Amino acid sequence: MLVYGKNVLKDVEPQKIRRVYLNENFHDKEIIRYLEDHHIRYFYRPKHQLDKMVDRHHQGIVIDMDSFLYSDFDSILEENFIVALDHLEDVHNFGAIIRTCEAAGVKSILIPKDRSVRVNDIVMKTSVGALDRVKIVLVNNLCESLKKLQKKNFFVYSAFMDGEDYQTIDYSDKKVLVIGNEGKGISNVVENITDVRIGIPMLGKVNSLNASVAAGILIFEMR
Amino acid sequence: MLVYGKNVLKDVEPQKIRRVYLNENFHDKEIIRYLEDHHIRYFYRPKHQLDKMVDRHHQGIVIDMDSFLYSDFDSILEENFIVALDHLEDVHNFGAIIRTCEAAGVKSILIPKDRSVRVNDIVMKTSVGALDRVKIVLVNNLCESLKKLQKKNFFVYSAFMDGEDYQTIDYSDKKVLVIGNEGKGISNVVENITDVRIGIPMLGKVNSLNASVAAGILIFEMR
Repeated sequence: MLVYGKNVLKDVEPQKIRRVYLNENFHDKEIIRYLEDHHIRYFYRPKHQLDKMVDRHHQGIVIDMDSFLYSDFDSILEENFIVALDHLEDVHNFGAIIRTCEAAGVKSILIPKDRSVRVNDIVMKTSVGALDRVKIVLVNNLCESLKKLQKKNFFVYSAFMDGEDYQTIDYSDKKVLVIGNEGKGISNVVENITDVRIGIPMLGKVNSLNASVAAGILIFEMR
Repeated sequence: MLVYGKNVLKDVEPQKIRRVYLNENFHDKEIIRYLEDHHIRYFYRPKHQLDKMVDRHHQGIVIDMDSFLYSDFDSILEENFIVALDHLEDVHNFGAIIRTCEAAGVKSILIPKDRSVRVNDIVMKTSVGALDRVKIVLVNNLCESLKKLQKKNFFVYSAFMDGEDYQTIDYSDKKVLVIGNEGKGISNVVENITDVRIGIPMLGKVNSLNASVAAGILIFEMR
């Protein structure tokens, strides 16, 4: 997997890096010392080659690293607070939610295999290193996985525009927060098995928050 | 100003629309009826022309509308809760913050003229119609404007990673929340005049939230 940028280099565990490509004019001595100190192989390439590899905000540094490893579903059953994304589509939202989970101490995120974001270079960049500390679990069927969690005493709280005021709820010890798709919200199958529909009371007319902002408000209240 | 997308069309006040360009193959009868009902002039254009006007996510509809009108500083002095953005750079964050303000009932946002986001087509798209209900004030010098607000009995709360826990603060009736730049945070000049440095306690290692997520958490607590 190709990722890029100076901050990302420092955030990726060195042993996961296969090689690094630098722009021919790359002169940042601190970065080059970092590469040498960590025995990371690096190669110089013309800018137009880097531009073709990744998006143009690479800052002269492209990192070829091991593909992202998704975690097993069974590995998260001992957690107390899991976030599930019901067919989220925007990779920037996904990255911001991973970062929020890391900051709030939430260690696992469930995503479905189909019609959903996956971990890619933009997610890696947007989540600023948080991916090393949050497990992402890819499941065939989100609804079935939530039912399994319910059998393990998890309560499923799903975010709806007209849900119960999130600040008035007495949250269970073991809980899953489900955030819906940016346009369609929570799917019907997930709504049907939801234990509590929760919502953020809105004063305005537009009546919906950006998915990652809503997730942030709910996660920091529920933790 | 050119904006685009089917949802945006419905969110823009019809009298602000000068004309609409549709893809030659555009067949959405509901949209065409909307244009005709509101006496909005529309023209068909080949896709490659629309692609040149705006980014390729236009959904076959480009809207030429009146430029965004910034509000006067004096018009916000009677507010109780103002959000100020200290040289924010990312237009997606700006759009998400406008949307959050609208949903939380915050009616005004202060931004500095230089080295800062402005209202453009991406902000319009990301804020999903909230721009009609939130005043954006463009000021020459953010720090001087904050000082003027302090003279009008506003308290200035600025967001810092190591600020006082946002949930333990007794907020003043008249308040400004300042959100810093995505990379550099709050500038030194603004820090110097800040009344209270507030922060969101982090449990993780990465130690920073996306700017619009942090703004969302703080705005919904402070409102």
